[in-house]
Amino acid sequence: MTRKVCVVVTARPSYSRIKTALIAIREHPDLELQLVLAASALLDRYGRVEEQIHEDGFEVAARVFMVLEGENPTSMAKTTGIGLLELATVMDNLRPDMVVTIADRFETMATATAAAFMGIPLAHVQGGEVTGSIDERVRHAVTKLSDIHFPSTRQAGDRLERMGEAPERVFVTGCPSIDLAAEAAGSRALDFDPFTRYGGVGELLNLDEGYIVVMQHPVTTEYTDARDHALEVLHAVDGSGLNALWFWPNVDAGSDGTSSGIRWFRENHPHARMHFFRNMAPTDFLELLIHSRGIVGNSSVAIRECEFLGVPAVDIGTRQSGRERGANVVPAGYDRGEIQTAILAQADHGRYDSGHLYGDGLAGERIAKHLAEVELTADKRLAY
Amino acid sequence: MTRKVCVVVTARPSYSRIKTALIAIREHPDLELQLVLAASALLDRYGRVEEQIHEDGFEVAARVFMVLEGENPTSMAKTTGIGLLELATVMDNLRPDMVVTIADRFETMATATAAAFMGIPLAHVQGGEVTGSIDERVRHAVTKLSDIHFPSTRQAGDRLERMGEAPERVFVTGCPSIDLAAEAAGSRALDFDPFTRYGGVGELLNLDEGYIVVMQHPVTTEYTDARDHALEVLHAVDGSGLNALWFWPNVDAGSDGTSSGIRWFRENHPHARMHFFRNMAPTDFLELLIHSRGIVGNSSVAIRECEFLGVPAVDIGTRQSGRERGANVVPAGYDRGEIQTAILAQADHGRYDSGHLYGDGLAGERIAKHLAEVELTADKRLAY
Amino acid sequence: MTRKVCVVVTARPSYSRIKTALIAIREHPDLELQLVLAASALLDRYGRVEEQIHEDGFEVAARVFMVLEGENPTSMAKTTGIGLLELATVMDNLRPDMVVTIADRFETMATATAAAFMGIPLAHVQGGEVTGSIDERVRHAVTKLSDIHFPSTRQAGDRLERMGEAPERVFVTGCPSIDLAAEAAGSRALDFDPFTRYGGVGELLNLDEGYIVVMQHPVTTEYTDARDHALEVLHAVDGSGLNALWFWPNVDAGSDGTSSGIRWFRENHPHARMHFFRNMAPTDFLELLIHSRGIVGNSSVAIRECEFLGVPAVDIGTRQSGRERGANVVPAGYDRGEIQTAILAQADHGRYDSGHLYGDGLAGERIAKHLAEVELTADKRLAY
Amino acid sequence: MTRKVCVVVTARPSYSRIKTALIAIREHPDLELQLVLAASALLDRYGRVEEQIHEDGFEVAARVFMVLEGENPTSMAKTTGIGLLELATVMDNLRPDMVVTIADRFETMATATAAAFMGIPLAHVQGGEVTGSIDERVRHAVTKLSDIHFPSTRQAGDRLERMGEAPERVFVTGCPSIDLAAEAAGSRALDFDPFTRYGGVGELLNLDEGYIVVMQHPVTTEYTDARDHALEVLHAVDGSGLNALWFWPNVDAGSDGTSSGIRWFRENHPHARMHFFRNMAPTDFLELLIHSRGIVGNSSVAIRECEFLGVPAVDIGTRQSGRERGANVVPAGYDRGEIQTAILAQADHGRYDSGHLYGDGLAGERIAKHLAEVELTADKRLAY
Repeated sequence: MTRKVCVVVTARPSYSRIKTALIAIREHPDLELQLVLAASALLDRYGRVEEQIHEDGFEVAARVFMVLEGENPTSMAKTTGIGLLELATVMDNLRPDMVVTIADRFETMATATAAAFMGIPLAHVQGGEVTGSIDERVRHAVTKLSDIHFPSTRQAGDRLERMGEAPERVFVTGCPSIDLAAEAAGSRALDFDPFTRYGGVGELLNLDEGYIVVMQHPVTTEYTDARDHALEVLHAVDGSGLNALWFWPNVDAGSDGTSSGIRWFRENHPHARMHFFRNMAPTDFLELLIHSRGIVGNSSVAIRECEFLGVPAVDIGTRQSGRERGANVVPAGYDRGEIQTAILAQADHGRYDSGHLYGDGLAGERIAKHLAEVELTADKRLAY
Repeated sequence: MTRKVCVVVTARPSYSRIKTALIAIREHPDLELQLVLAASALLDRYGRVEEQIHEDGFEVAARVFMVLEGENPTSMAKTTGIGLLELATVMDNLRPDMVVTIADRFETMATATAAAFMGIPLAHVQGGEVTGSIDERVRHAVTKLSDIHFPSTRQAGDRLERMGEAPERVFVTGCPSIDLAAEAAGSRALDFDPFTRYGGVGELLNLDEGYIVVMQHPVTTEYTDARDHALEVLHAVDGSGLNALWFWPNVDAGSDGTSSGIRWFRENHPHARMHFFRNMAPTDFLELLIHSRGIVGNSSVAIRECEFLGVPAVDIGTRQSGRERGANVVPAGYDRGEIQTAILAQADHGRYDSGHLYGDGLAGERIAKHLAEVELTADKRLAY
Repeated sequence: MTRKVCVVVTARPSYSRIKTALIAIREHPDLELQLVLAASALLDRYGRVEEQIHEDGFEVAARVFMVLEGENPTSMAKTTGIGLLELATVMDNLRPDMVVTIADRFETMATATAAAFMGIPLAHVQGGEVTGSIDERVRHAVTKLSDIHFPSTRQAGDRLERMGEAPERVFVTGCPSIDLAAEAAGSRALDFDPFTRYGGVGELLNLDEGYIVVMQHPVTTEYTDARDHALEVLHAVDGSGLNALWFWPNVDAGSDGTSSGIRWFRENHPHARMHFFRNMAPTDFLELLIHSRGIVGNSSVAIRECEFLGVPAVDIGTRQSGRERGANVVPAGYDRGEIQTAILAQADHGRYDSGHLYGDGLAGERIAKHLAEVELTADKRLAY
Repeated sequence: MTRKVCVVVTARPSYSRIKTALIAIREHPDLELQLVLAASALLDRYGRVEEQIHEDGFEVAARVFMVLEGENPTSMAKTTGIGLLELATVMDNLRPDMVVTIADRFETMATATAAAFMGIPLAHVQGGEVTGSIDERVRHAVTKLSDIHFPSTRQAGDRLERMGEAPERVFVTGCPSIDLAAEAAGSRALDFDPFTRYGGVGELLNLDEGYIVVMQHPVTTEYTDARDHALEVLHAVDGSGLNALWFWPNVDAGSDGTSSGIRWFRENHPHARMHFFRNMAPTDFLELLIHSRGIVGNSSVAIRECEFLGVPAVDIGTRQSGRERGANVVPAGYDRGEIQTAILAQADHGRYDSGHLYGDGLAGERIAKHLAEVELTADKRLAY
């Protein structure tokens, strides 16, 4: 019998992290996909992904606006409460056989709690990793609410078992985001003009001179510092003399701080060799990365996809601390000098060897297969 | 500097499990108590505790009605979403330095998520235990959201550490509910008439003949069976020929099933030697227990307080399975014959020796002391 | 082009008041029905109508559990807030061209506010009437949010125009509940046994001796008195010596008071000639009415359907005060003697002539026709 | 006995419209003020008023974050639902004797519905006026939920009575915003530098050359056009050659469209003689107005305060259409040429005579007096 699999996507980056699994679920004869869009995935100012999802041929089963304004810890909690209230209604109406939740954004607690309380078997992608900030608590709490685990790495899988999850429910699949990277890896040259295709604001750069990519997210538990952090990165990138393509931060406490830092810098350095984008199709973004001289910031893309692709990375601050990483990553603190030095060194280094730390390109298919075949049971108990 | 400690009580039984800690917090010179009442603690039909709390001299800082009707898994999830949305507002207005959440009822996820997301250090009482049903997931997810742990037993504390909680944040205090049992343990004879004081419905029994106490909760992940389960217990108790004092179930998916079973039985066995209560002051309830010939059902009181008090217990079904237990407990399935045999054997056995498995009577003071002295830090990370 | 018409049904009685319009919408070539069930329409203890709706061949587009426990004014307000939050999501997903809301239950404010704020033309059935209690405010506030009005009577339509509604948007259609009464009016004899078909509790009465029907709702703005009111009615009906078929109250602040009064009476008068039902198919209920000796209580059925059917009615208290009424209605206060006298007089009177005060039996079709043909415009302004 | 009066302020402009009443309530011996802040009043990007309120010596009884992101009609409805859910809890905890709601912003429906459903007498300031957009429906629906009315004008009061409100509950007090204007009216010269005190962005203008003030809000039922509308105004103001002080729009569907238009214009006309502010203390704003050569846009300030002050006004578009107006107002459509002509004519005209259309400066005191003295009753019924 066909299993209805409800996947809740709450943000632009989450879509990239699940896309190949969505395709594999849609194409699996024993699975039926119910795709739900919620939270910042629906909001223009965080680069909503709805159009991309339609272009990729997916139907949207339900949409839930749930992000409360304020961008502070109170609004994060309330957003999650609204999401829990409403996603329960959505699941009551869609009646899925399984629910899939992705990674560790705060609002995934809503998806996970709804499914667990409603007795719908819950699969969690990307559990068992260790990082800083509130994500850490969310990720492990979601693990404790979940029935089935699809960690990206063996180390993460081991941690899940140490935490008391039953080994027969832990499937190390690799991360679906690496699947996209694997597809893109064959690109020989940048075959589109990002300024024409995506607009954005700032200088129109000559990308033939080489360029770096910057993604700097606010760190939720230190949100008042977000503006200062952004400014250190802005000055360092500016000082490097390299062309830079920036990507706007996603919704989190403090993103206004980051945005405000960026706006201030742009007004006062109108001719900096920077261009700012809000959003980009994942495949185009990967192609930009592949042909870049490196990535700078605190995005997990630098640690995950770029390890597979061999793209040099400068990882700033604590957001990714604790994550398993390959040779391609150099760390830096929130200091413009330190960041600038690291950028220049990495840009000079050139491409690293490709690694398989976070997957080999087949995660999506593995996930769909397990979703179709895993035994569904309601009960769960600490394995020790 | 005084620390403001916000304790959220969401149900009648939770109040008994935290009362001595509330007193100790109120009396501690470095702590200020902010008591919040929510969920079924405010509802008549689950025996609201508001009056008792006022009689005990506590002020209520805020009340939050949040229980959605339906008594099904969907309404459990939605109730928790409403609670999360509103408790965040309450915490934003009260600005506590710490939040305390109790045990593992589903709606404690709201308290825990609100505090964790808002960066307020969260203390969890009664973590690390193993039981059946949705409580299991809630308990361990709350652990993962918490900063400080007050498990009841050493075994529970060890489990918390195996799950990756930092040992220096795990304080085995015993359970505050045992503190109440310790206070009550000196009672020589039943010094009140429960029928006069609490009303209830059913026969007025001659308690001098001896009696048993029955508490049967619906098991949330099997809620459609709640009515059948209740009927097996009703027939077994009736068949035992013993006087029985029943206590009405608390709010959970399926409590209507249990209630419906009880109502059917009462209509069809109008002269059964049973009396039904909705609620009772914890101290009176403990006194009833102490002078009873045993307790029957699936309440944790049978495992926890009654181990300390040496009261014989018949534990029915899976609700308490996995809980550490002393010599006073005999298990039984949902079979009226099996239950009846166990009841009669336990009633004949008489009092067991007192044990200290779940505490020694000083838990409340220990909890307050740790709340006042523990170092408060926002960050948390898996200890391995 | 087909217009999608979203009708939100929030309670058992509302379904009867819209059923013929639902059928006419479903069958109209230019309309597509989107039926949403919410609030007490989904709850067993208020006689949920979901099964009946399925039996009547309707598909349910979405279900929204939204009733907060407490049955007090705070929970009424919060229920409406939850409904507004969630119905907006439902409408965002269903994308109707029009929304229909029914009468004046408090939670209809959620439907009306969602549609009005989302710019979806809102049609209101049964506006412009005058009654007591909170319904009065709800009804007129919904009028002010609505674009199109389907009042039941000419007098109600005139009131809408005096309140500033544009005359070209006011269509006096009669009430769809009268359509059902018109269909049922031809019944020659009671052709089913209500005890067999609907169970219920209480005595199995010999209906050939004649019987009265009782429907007594709590009056929301006086909810603490609900229990006393119920007892006066119970004593009066008991004293009349007539067989009585009671119908349980719907969800409102105070229904627990009414329920508690009924339970007390039943325990203390176990052999009263009364039988209690929770719910009944509208057609069966109408047939019971037609063959009864009268209706007692404070239901609007006594004023509306019974005026058309000529069934004698005793209207108790203030709940229906201000409603236009025909010759079939005799008023009574909350006094058992006064009520009993009125019951006996009406039972002796026998059938009244049929009237057309609230409609002629064609309301449903008229409503569908106007929904299909009315010009849709977003703007609205006071007509003076 | 002292009456507790709960006033819910949900936005920056609402605070100015109620401030003198807040002061009068605070100082009245028989009243106790409970000030609740909610919605955009708490949000930085709409110029939150919390600091001003503290500086004005008010204590805040509760804060409720409730604005859902999206700035579309769905999020407006959901915001109001969240507000209704949470304001009911706030009122349940504060237990006011009366609630005051202000004017016609969409989220005032939350305040009004909560109070009405909870049986708390509701007073409405600024009812009975006629304007365009969703405000029109909100205003009249709030009237229908209210017990006591404080309209600004006699004409508005008459409309309330025509709508069926009891004349003895309608008190024409004038608008409290005029009280602030009356206090400010004596100012001889601009005694502060707005650029120093409030920052903002854009050119530092020489205000001695004269200047105009611009406030252009998005029109909620046409929100997709907000950007185009903003651009017509921007070009017209630019073309007038006058210095212009702009004030940023408040939270409403479409404010991002307006903001986006402003940002685009600034990037492409970096040297326009414009300066943009987010917020200003009401008294400073009034002083700026008094010494300006006119006000341009669609704010009601142009119609209300400026009529009292005699400041020339250009009223653009439909947002204020239907409002009573004095000689000081000239209308214009969304056409840059038409707007520019009107601006130049009004700037040349100079000050108009002061009028008392919207009040004489004593509204706050009158409101407090009526709140203290009006008879409180729960019931309400259409007066015809």
